[in-house]
Amino acid sequence: MTVRFGLLGAGRIGKVHAKAVSGSADAVLVAVADAFPEAASAIAKAYGCEVRTIEQIETSKDIDAVVICTPTDTHADLIERFARAGKAIFCEKPIDLDVDRVRACMKVVADTKGKLMVGFNRRFDPHFMAVRKAIDDGKIGDVEMVTITSRDPGAPPVDYIKRSGGIFRDMTIHDFDMARFLLGEEVVSVLATAAVLVDPEIGKAGDYDSVSVILQTKSGKQAIISNSRRATYGYDQRIEVHGSKGVVSAENQRPVSIEIANGDGYTRPPLHDFFMTRYTKAYANEIAGFISAIEKGTAITPSGADGLAALALADAALQSVKEKKLVAVG
Amino acid sequence: MTVRFGLLGAGRIGKVHAKAVSGSADAVLVAVADAFPEAASAIAKAYGCEVRTIEQIETSKDIDAVVICTPTDTHADLIERFARAGKAIFCEKPIDLDVDRVRACMKVVADTKGKLMVGFNRRFDPHFMAVRKAIDDGKIGDVEMVTITSRDPGAPPVDYIKRSGGIFRDMTIHDFDMARFLLGEEVVSVLATAAVLVDPEIGKAGDYDSVSVILQTKSGKQAIISNSRRATYGYDQRIEVHGSKGVVSAENQRPVSIEIANGDGYTRPPLHDFFMTRYTKAYANEIAGFISAIEKGTAITPSGADGLAALALADAALQSVKEKKLVAVG
Amino acid sequence: MTVRFGLLGAGRIGKVHAKAVSGSADAVLVAVADAFPEAASAIAKAYGCEVRTIEQIETSKDIDAVVICTPTDTHADLIERFARAGKAIFCEKPIDLDVDRVRACMKVVADTKGKLMVGFNRRFDPHFMAVRKAIDDGKIGDVEMVTITSRDPGAPPVDYIKRSGGIFRDMTIHDFDMARFLLGEEVVSVLATAAVLVDPEIGKAGDYDSVSVILQTKSGKQAIISNSRRATYGYDQRIEVHGSKGVVSAENQRPVSIEIANGDGYTRPPLHDFFMTRYTKAYANEIAGFISAIEKGTAITPSGADGLAALALADAALQSVKEKKLVAVG
Amino acid sequence: MTVRFGLLGAGRIGKVHAKAVSGSADAVLVAVADAFPEAASAIAKAYGCEVRTIEQIETSKDIDAVVICTPTDTHADLIERFARAGKAIFCEKPIDLDVDRVRACMKVVADTKGKLMVGFNRRFDPHFMAVRKAIDDGKIGDVEMVTITSRDPGAPPVDYIKRSGGIFRDMTIHDFDMARFLLGEEVVSVLATAAVLVDPEIGKAGDYDSVSVILQTKSGKQAIISNSRRATYGYDQRIEVHGSKGVVSAENQRPVSIEIANGDGYTRPPLHDFFMTRYTKAYANEIAGFISAIEKGTAITPSGADGLAALALADAALQSVKEKKLVAVG
Repeated sequence: MTVRFGLLGAGRIGKVHAKAVSGSADAVLVAVADAFPEAASAIAKAYGCEVRTIEQIETSKDIDAVVICTPTDTHADLIERFARAGKAIFCEKPIDLDVDRVRACMKVVADTKGKLMVGFNRRFDPHFMAVRKAIDDGKIGDVEMVTITSRDPGAPPVDYIKRSGGIFRDMTIHDFDMARFLLGEEVVSVLATAAVLVDPEIGKAGDYDSVSVILQTKSGKQAIISNSRRATYGYDQRIEVHGSKGVVSAENQRPVSIEIANGDGYTRPPLHDFFMTRYTKAYANEIAGFISAIEKGTAITPSGADGLAALALADAALQSVKEKKLVAVG
Repeated sequence: MTVRFGLLGAGRIGKVHAKAVSGSADAVLVAVADAFPEAASAIAKAYGCEVRTIEQIETSKDIDAVVICTPTDTHADLIERFARAGKAIFCEKPIDLDVDRVRACMKVVADTKGKLMVGFNRRFDPHFMAVRKAIDDGKIGDVEMVTITSRDPGAPPVDYIKRSGGIFRDMTIHDFDMARFLLGEEVVSVLATAAVLVDPEIGKAGDYDSVSVILQTKSGKQAIISNSRRATYGYDQRIEVHGSKGVVSAENQRPVSIEIANGDGYTRPPLHDFFMTRYTKAYANEIAGFISAIEKGTAITPSGADGLAALALADAALQSVKEKKLVAVG
Repeated sequence: MTVRFGLLGAGRIGKVHAKAVSGSADAVLVAVADAFPEAASAIAKAYGCEVRTIEQIETSKDIDAVVICTPTDTHADLIERFARAGKAIFCEKPIDLDVDRVRACMKVVADTKGKLMVGFNRRFDPHFMAVRKAIDDGKIGDVEMVTITSRDPGAPPVDYIKRSGGIFRDMTIHDFDMARFLLGEEVVSVLATAAVLVDPEIGKAGDYDSVSVILQTKSGKQAIISNSRRATYGYDQRIEVHGSKGVVSAENQRPVSIEIANGDGYTRPPLHDFFMTRYTKAYANEIAGFISAIEKGTAITPSGADGLAALALADAALQSVKEKKLVAVG
Repeated sequence: MTVRFGLLGAGRIGKVHAKAVSGSADAVLVAVADAFPEAASAIAKAYGCEVRTIEQIETSKDIDAVVICTPTDTHADLIERFARAGKAIFCEKPIDLDVDRVRACMKVVADTKGKLMVGFNRRFDPHFMAVRKAIDDGKIGDVEMVTITSRDPGAPPVDYIKRSGGIFRDMTIHDFDMARFLLGEEVVSVLATAAVLVDPEIGKAGDYDSVSVILQTKSGKQAIISNSRRATYGYDQRIEVHGSKGVVSAENQRPVSIEIANGDGYTRPPLHDFFMTRYTKAYANEIAGFISAIEKGTAITPSGADGLAALALADAALQSVKEKKLVAVG
């Protein structure tokens, strides 16, 4: 079976997914839609597909699945439309910044028996997958404490920050999902601290740039998340899981691994400086996983419920900061 | 000048300090006291010093300084007695498990213009000292986020746990001190989570074995502490400090650094499995620092006030767990 | 300009190059030829090109360049034919196992002003390129000593060994080229030792499986090469260059970089176990470099002369082993 | 039993051994002799022993063993004298720079049934000991290829070089001994290359500063040694042993193991810059091994025969360079 795709949104991340779909032996990119005709045309030309409108794709008989890479505030609507249209849906995170809107959207998906995958790409990073596999293989015994360090090379423009829903919903949400992915038990409480240490403009926009979060599950398993909007040494993405029998960790990734030594010491190059180069394989694996789930008819993960759960943790973290207390969830 | 020492307590840690004092070119071990005569005699024989009673040491004219390694519940009394006797005092942490008792003791030290150093040995670890030096040298700019991972190879006996004051006062206290040492700004709030994941007996004794803590300073700097009473791979002691210009970290230490590779992968040996071998140099540096401060008449660090501040953070962490909220300190 | 390619040979390495050519924005794969029609058809189908005979490709007006991936004993003949046909040529190493045959072939290339690149893919590995760049940037001062460790996961079949020209011409030749690439000065003498330690069958076939080589340049710069046909921990490919101001090294590569620690120690996974996965990017970069040189009309490196020089070092190494003496070259 | 020591030579290395003897629970330093009375007195004062002449020590009834740290050209004579005097002897390497003189000295030791240990301290480095233990434990199967990288932080004064016997007898000799220690089979042939790349003055003195050596055993096991008299990044001392089942290696050592990362990359401090700090534990272990062998009456290793064998390899390496051929030994 070949899964026939429509792509909604031809921006930066749209191109990544277009390449992944086109490069798959089990999928074909049939059409692309974008509010900017030039963007759509560029992808159409590069990958040999048609330009169509969203409405056309919605009713296209030659399209089985869509990849939604449009602006965040359109996600929920598009998911509902394409769920009703019977298309399998891959949607970039988040579904929406509002939990109630996400719940309503999930209901439509459920009612239409829709297939929905949410774009938590990090679950598909080969190194993080290997961490998860080590856990599943019993290498570290029972999971006890997850530590996630996640720092961006630099803060996005303040305009973006204003529309982002705040650091917990925009940035930490990936780590909330990763914590859930690794803890193996639902989180029941959230403690968070937040500050503006990187750029006062972020504070003026009502957001934070440096946060620390502790999650805890019912049985007491803990996850610690450390976020900063700026890391001078590159895109810092580390995971460590401590268990009853040992610990497993995933190191940072760098484009080249050489080392130069002299009187000043031993120096290795900085890390990847961009999420797209850091997670190149993760994006490819993600789409491959979506295609595979469609072909085999297996459950799709991460699901809409995963998206909702991560968003609920983000909301709880913000509440914890504001109210200076532990916030129960779930 | 040669500083003449009396040693109070000839147990495990007493031996460590006896060796450090004897090995110093600027100090001499004059006498040792212990409730168990055999223990005192063993040290006396090994290092060529006399056995005396505590009372005798208190009034000895040939003793300038004492090292207190007796049981915790005697620390505050002995500090007061030897402060009044005009001896410089090195006391193993903690001064006392009760903040009010510590405060009273501090008052006596202040009233007698006593010299007191508290045994937070980790400040003297060469690697952690190098971390601090990197900060002081401006290598990472302004400190923003401190991450401390501290896991013991195995839990102490439950009998010890019962007398220990609990994990925050017994184990995390070292990390509270290290966080203060590195943050460069006083902590104003504490968030903590605690659980029993390692040994149910610890829970029955009213304590925890797995805790996560977030500290925050007035300007928003954050410190995260992760503790477990058990780490199968050895004595896990890591520090990382993230700043505006970079990050500095201290790796774990192992007795031998070889690597064996075969079809199963690349394997390095486990870490040190005991705090005394891990911190051998730290203990020697610590006593050297005490001797140097006495000789030069300089301020003694870490002081009784440092001991008190760390204990207050421990109390706040416990309160945060119990009351499920942020606890303000200072 | 789009460079139009014909592919000669549709085997394992042919597929790698077909993918690289097809994936390039500046090239198109027009046709493929192979003695086995099924192999050619498979590539033709996968990448949308035609199946043609070698003779047809030789006279195809719509083909600018060829990639030669046929058996070694056909390389020299094909290079001569396609040089005469005016096609740019990329040929897998070696040109031939016989130095005189290579020289004759080079003469034809020179006489026809042919463009020839020899497939020393390792020059295009991102990590080794970064090593070379560090040298070129003056990071280590004058090059003094190059150390190359190159061990295969496992020995090839003895049948292959018999046709291979021996370990120096088949395996070490890559290291000879890399040494030349990094020394920056021509080698003038070779010392070599060889033994059969891995598999007696290799010895019965007249070859060796474990060799050590020292190269020296006129000014005394040295290169050490260590080869084994078997490494239980994967494909071991390390380079270190020591210079007057420092040292630069390229680490081994592994598919996933996690680490698991427990009472047995800290374990990272084995290395890549196959040259094609280890050098995926090198193969892509190599073809990109070939395309770029054709487009820009710049000199092509590594050239036929580079192939000849590496082969001469292989012959000298074998002579050194046989005659138990230093062999002068160049 | 307490072994009673006399120390011959109170220079830099004499101090190291005085400290090791004094720190041992099984030994006591009774007397020290040196041509410079002040040097002897300093050690006598620091460790509470007497100053005696060499002649006095030779006839002292209260001395069981001597440590010879006098200038190289006195070693053989002193070994013979103290062997005849019935003292156990620890002698710094080398016994002599001339193989025949060493043989004559060995004969005296044999005739007197003398106990002699030669100071190849690296055999006692904890990391190298662990490498050897991994081999003995079968972790890497049969040893096939040993790689030793040994580079000094900086060249010694040319005056020292002139008296040193040349780089092979002065510096590489440690690596020859280590190769023998790890190969587990006697070397039968030597290939060597040498050059002057660091300092032309060394060349004018008739010596080399950059050498590469290949050793081979009867069964074909190989050892590669790479030496430079200068390494800007510190005292470079690495060992790797490749075997049929895997590889074991010992990493370089540094005084502090922190890492600082910023936009320029990840930097760790340089290595130890002095052999005495690098090999602090090795020196202590070495004397402990000597004392233990005396107490238990077990065979002493490394023996005079080990010293002789390493010197023979040094001579063979020099011959290989001069005559441009493989030199057979043993």
